[in-house]
Amino acid sequence: MLTIGVIGAGRIGQLHVNYLKNNKDVRIKWISDLNCDKMDAWIKECSIENKTKNHMDIINDSEVEAIIICSPTDTHVDIIKSACAAGKHIFCEKPISLSIKESEEALDAVKKSNVKLQMGFNRRFDSNFKQLQQSITNGDLGEIQTLRITSRDPEPPPIDYIKRSGGLFMDMSIHDFDMARYLMQSEITEVFAVGGALVNPEISQYDDIDTAIITLKFESGALAVIENCRRSVYGYDQRIEVLGENGLITVDNAQSSTLTFHKATGISTENPPYFFLERYSEAYKIEMDQFLDAIVNDKEVSCTIEDGYNAQKIAIKCKESLDEQQTKAL
Amino acid sequence: MLTIGVIGAGRIGQLHVNYLKNNKDVRIKWISDLNCDKMDAWIKECSIENKTKNHMDIINDSEVEAIIICSPTDTHVDIIKSACAAGKHIFCEKPISLSIKESEEALDAVKKSNVKLQMGFNRRFDSNFKQLQQSITNGDLGEIQTLRITSRDPEPPPIDYIKRSGGLFMDMSIHDFDMARYLMQSEITEVFAVGGALVNPEISQYDDIDTAIITLKFESGALAVIENCRRSVYGYDQRIEVLGENGLITVDNAQSSTLTFHKATGISTENPPYFFLERYSEAYKIEMDQFLDAIVNDKEVSCTIEDGYNAQKIAIKCKESLDEQQTKAL
Amino acid sequence: MLTIGVIGAGRIGQLHVNYLKNNKDVRIKWISDLNCDKMDAWIKECSIENKTKNHMDIINDSEVEAIIICSPTDTHVDIIKSACAAGKHIFCEKPISLSIKESEEALDAVKKSNVKLQMGFNRRFDSNFKQLQQSITNGDLGEIQTLRITSRDPEPPPIDYIKRSGGLFMDMSIHDFDMARYLMQSEITEVFAVGGALVNPEISQYDDIDTAIITLKFESGALAVIENCRRSVYGYDQRIEVLGENGLITVDNAQSSTLTFHKATGISTENPPYFFLERYSEAYKIEMDQFLDAIVNDKEVSCTIEDGYNAQKIAIKCKESLDEQQTKAL
Amino acid sequence: MLTIGVIGAGRIGQLHVNYLKNNKDVRIKWISDLNCDKMDAWIKECSIENKTKNHMDIINDSEVEAIIICSPTDTHVDIIKSACAAGKHIFCEKPISLSIKESEEALDAVKKSNVKLQMGFNRRFDSNFKQLQQSITNGDLGEIQTLRITSRDPEPPPIDYIKRSGGLFMDMSIHDFDMARYLMQSEITEVFAVGGALVNPEISQYDDIDTAIITLKFESGALAVIENCRRSVYGYDQRIEVLGENGLITVDNAQSSTLTFHKATGISTENPPYFFLERYSEAYKIEMDQFLDAIVNDKEVSCTIEDGYNAQKIAIKCKESLDEQQTKAL
Repeated sequence: MLTIGVIGAGRIGQLHVNYLKNNKDVRIKWISDLNCDKMDAWIKECSIENKTKNHMDIINDSEVEAIIICSPTDTHVDIIKSACAAGKHIFCEKPISLSIKESEEALDAVKKSNVKLQMGFNRRFDSNFKQLQQSITNGDLGEIQTLRITSRDPEPPPIDYIKRSGGLFMDMSIHDFDMARYLMQSEITEVFAVGGALVNPEISQYDDIDTAIITLKFESGALAVIENCRRSVYGYDQRIEVLGENGLITVDNAQSSTLTFHKATGISTENPPYFFLERYSEAYKIEMDQFLDAIVNDKEVSCTIEDGYNAQKIAIKCKESLDEQQTKAL
Repeated sequence: MLTIGVIGAGRIGQLHVNYLKNNKDVRIKWISDLNCDKMDAWIKECSIENKTKNHMDIINDSEVEAIIICSPTDTHVDIIKSACAAGKHIFCEKPISLSIKESEEALDAVKKSNVKLQMGFNRRFDSNFKQLQQSITNGDLGEIQTLRITSRDPEPPPIDYIKRSGGLFMDMSIHDFDMARYLMQSEITEVFAVGGALVNPEISQYDDIDTAIITLKFESGALAVIENCRRSVYGYDQRIEVLGENGLITVDNAQSSTLTFHKATGISTENPPYFFLERYSEAYKIEMDQFLDAIVNDKEVSCTIEDGYNAQKIAIKCKESLDEQQTKAL
Repeated sequence: MLTIGVIGAGRIGQLHVNYLKNNKDVRIKWISDLNCDKMDAWIKECSIENKTKNHMDIINDSEVEAIIICSPTDTHVDIIKSACAAGKHIFCEKPISLSIKESEEALDAVKKSNVKLQMGFNRRFDSNFKQLQQSITNGDLGEIQTLRITSRDPEPPPIDYIKRSGGLFMDMSIHDFDMARYLMQSEITEVFAVGGALVNPEISQYDDIDTAIITLKFESGALAVIENCRRSVYGYDQRIEVLGENGLITVDNAQSSTLTFHKATGISTENPPYFFLERYSEAYKIEMDQFLDAIVNDKEVSCTIEDGYNAQKIAIKCKESLDEQQTKAL
Repeated sequence: MLTIGVIGAGRIGQLHVNYLKNNKDVRIKWISDLNCDKMDAWIKECSIENKTKNHMDIINDSEVEAIIICSPTDTHVDIIKSACAAGKHIFCEKPISLSIKESEEALDAVKKSNVKLQMGFNRRFDSNFKQLQQSITNGDLGEIQTLRITSRDPEPPPIDYIKRSGGLFMDMSIHDFDMARYLMQSEITEVFAVGGALVNPEISQYDDIDTAIITLKFESGALAVIENCRRSVYGYDQRIEVLGENGLITVDNAQSSTLTFHKATGISTENPPYFFLERYSEAYKIEMDQFLDAIVNDKEVSCTIEDGYNAQKIAIKCKESLDEQQTKAL
């Protein structure tokens, strides 16, 4: 029985709790959230033992072995440092922080401790992308020339979210940077980014964009392109293609159903799952299972704070490239 | 908390238990199986409280509220009658029996009792087929002309299974007969069947076939064709098409992954799920949830013993049609 | 230079002429049609040298080497007999006639002559179905268990056409009977047919149906099902599937374009080609090229009068089966 | 009857002649090629009246009304200038030249003359891309955010070809630059290119690359990415996607057949057409028909020398961007 505490009960915190509550080997001793007073029904339904507005109550509880960080980004580094000091294992949603310096402090804290920290790059745990990664690693495609990641959200978030998001690269593309590193198993050496506020011009007032095309170069010489947009009205667009000497592997969007309608006006199918909660519902479970397994069986986590740090650095270089209209080296 | 007992711990009995063991509102008090002595590890893992070789131990236990019948077909009717007498709700795998007379006894027993009996026609609970059924019922297709069901197993069962199976129509096509009735919401009035032992000629020694084409006529005037085969080396083939005045709806096989390989030799994807356990894993969960919900909330079951009885009658008429080479009325 | 005459300038006669007019090695000396007076512009555009209302003018012309019969079915046998007597090679649209006795006279006339007669079963010349036929013949699928032909017209013809059509089996399914024989390279030994006037009940007044499911048995033991309907509002539905010991080959409808629209309401593509002129435009050219090649280079025709006769017999047996509700042997 | 001469009888010259020879309204009076002595059989088969090694024989022939330029790129400008002076209409394969200055001379010559010049950007005439262009122009997608062009050759050309090709951007991507302008109906204002000799490192010795990712910005603010590679072992990869406010349109590769094989090892279809001659066979015919129609009916050509000049300028800017690792404005 593993005793845990969850910090942050927003959309993603609730998602993790709703899965963990069915795990007979996990005891959810704590939830911390500033709004936890309004969550009594849900807290009871999930058999969470205690609630608090102060996450330090969790970190200071000697029974707690691991924490799940789902609170706002600007709280991550302090929590990580405290948890490391207290010897609690950590699952942390992305990004580590919006500042390289702060992330380095977190990285340092984890290195000096014995705690395991797993970053919440959920897409690595999607069975299709995992299969692609294995196919590349197995050499099915031979040497790789180009990788293409299409990643589009169905609709832009509210402007209030944009303001605190760290920008498109840090908030949205960061998943794609991690995916690129994960698939290619090679470090990124150069980036170039172009973009614009093409969906909602208001976004440009906050020094941000909603549409981007990002070009990456890997140590291996291979190239990648990431295509991001905050709006794809047909649903969450999550596709990948990899070209190698032996051919091409494409990973298409998941189907919502296997029905096809053939009418006088044409042939149609349903859109893919609308957004990340639906699309990656299985991946979220697998990433959590692997985190628990890493703790219980003392294994390496499959997605480290270094992975989070590297993805963050790439995001920062992309913003510089966008502003300066030139290639930026890492 | 609902207290249940499971009768029969073969492949399908284990499947149900493995799902039910995670339901906090269900207490699995009993498992009965002639081989239960060899199952201690699994029984413990599933927190089943008692084991027995005699299913009457379950039926006689006053705490038990419902039973799941997964034992061989020739035991079903006796168990149903006993359970009805004891007032236990029943989930029963198909078919009810191989004899119309015996099934009528079971039907009678259920009618005279207050127990709910749900037949295990799992495919009704597949989200795609359910969506199709709703689309037909909503009138999306207008009046229906023809229904086509393709249903093929990846490989023939052992001859020993064939001998006890009741024949292709009773063992395999019975799912398709139920699906046809479920989708069309209209009774079948005539059947015609042709077939042969085209995969394994040895099967013909047991007055059975492994390949069949079955034509059905509905009260509504609509027609249907069912194509069955005991071997489709590319995996479990489960497709449906419905033609109506407004067009056609096709339900294709489920994907195993969203990867496509483009090589010098061609473009390829993975086969569909290999067999029913993989293909209908979600449907099995939904049917069980609905059975439990029907008991706890005193609702109608979604698939009745009459449905089981009707499908069985169709199977018997198909065998007569095959033997006599003519249409048989129901 | 091959000198030909075309008998009948309806839709299909014009199609053949419009193709042949571009062939520098073909001289279209004659067109015969009862309405040829209204066709002067088209006759000139196609450089047809002479027009007549009497096809015997063509058959009696010693320069004419071959004729293309596109006139109404009830004229075919007389024309074939005259052409055989005059030593003219014959391309004849299906069916030979509506009467077995008359078709046997035509068959006899051809056998006793030295003329080549090619039946207009255009679908044999479709590149996809040809590839399927070769795949089956090559043994790619191993032994065949079942063949499925889906063949649906976009909309029913006028009642006036129905009256003279010879009925669904003779008019429409006959193409599928020929395709079944062509693909399987095995003779059909038994048929069973069920059907109804489900699209337009008025059709039943003329002892005809508009929807049918036909089951066939081959000498090889293999089975087939043909699904016909006079209405598929999504376009001309022409699909085939063949199941064998090594797997399944499906031949899907041809695409009208490679565009896919992804909108908020779903993902859609265009319907397949609307009807046979569009769908088989290439096949019509290939069949005519092969007919000319057979004459010029003294080769066997690829689709004989025996093929036409066999398909006609199957059509007749299907009507008997439909009426008598039992299997009919051939 | 239009009298023409064809300059250059390589692969593409022969393609055009083989189509034009069947046009009854075209007289191919001349072919010029340095190797024409070895082509007598083909010249006769195509009913070409005269052959020469000197294209000026064609331009000086007062009967000739139009010329088709399929000779090596370094001959184009001189031929264009001579043809303009002689008042001959011109169909010219891409690119105009490898030098901006020379192309401007050609542009100038055309402007000052009354001749029509159509550039051989064949892809504009593909029915699928034309349909896409119309869909964009009709506003089906609303405002456009991003365009993606995938364009890959099945295998790299010989090194000798590379040396004379003008480089990847001028030889291969130029088609994509034209397609981008054609689809978006907006001028390109900025380019960025990254690339490498990832398929054949020897290519780098000739200051060239075989793999590129090119980012474009349009006047409209929209973005585009072009992905080029000299090797896609699965066939000629020619796909386009356009994202707009109302959704996404994808144009997939053309099918070679409609057969799908379902085997124990997976589901497979054939690769797309292997290379441009197969893929664009219809487009080549349509572009030539439109050129002839423009002359005969005095219409505007659908692809002008300005289009050729603009595409060439983009190619040159891409090479600069690649070398300087920064955005280049046009």
